[in-house]
Amino acid sequence: MYRLVILLTIRVVAKNQVKPEKIQEFMDLCEKLVEGSIKEEGCIEYGVYQELENSGILTMLEEWKDESSLDEHLNSSHFREIFPLLSECLEKDTEINVYRKKL
Amino acid sequence: MYRLVILLTIRVVAKNQVKPEKIQEFMDLCEKLVEGSIKEEGCIEYGVYQELENSGILTMLEEWKDESSLDEHLNSSHFREIFPLLSECLEKDTEINVYRKKL
Repeated sequence: MYRLVILLTIRVVAKNQVKPEKIQEFMDLCEKLVEGSIKEEGCIEYGVYQELENSGILTMLEEWKDESSLDEHLNSSHFREIFPLLSECLEKDTEINVYRKKL
Repeated sequence: MYRLVILLTIRVVAKNQVKPEKIQEFMDLCEKLVEGSIKEEGCIEYGVYQELENSGILTMLEEWKDESSLDEHLNSSHFREIFPLLSECLEKDTEINVYRKKL
């Protein structure tokens, strides 16, 4: 007997409105965060993207194997160290959405 | 002589807050929109994703070959036909962000 198991990954959109004078600092911090995150076992994608019409909107687009991979990421030393520093560069709190595919 | 040309794709996040009683109607419309969109020549990805903690947030995560592919999509008959109908299912206007990779 075979069982068909369809595993859907988790997608994260973490949108940041960065203070104009803090964009370079934010990107430097992101470089370290990306470096640590893409090495995690459950990481499928982790990138930082800039809005075409508003260069202060810098958003992480992420894909994780499953919810526990995302939990591990949020508890990783690189995330716990860098995320508070990123927050200091922002106009307002990061807007985080976690998704699973429907269609 | 060779020239190295790095082409970065365009990523779109189109976030919708759907009225609770309109979720099924919204998804049925999305099915048609996805069907048309993934056939477009410049489409790399086009999916509809549901927020894990708020089932009324239904977001398109899209990837297009370049900006002109996205323009073609926005002018396609399926998009122009279906997008106004989708809008009628929403609590507020779709929040659309268009991105290019930085890191």
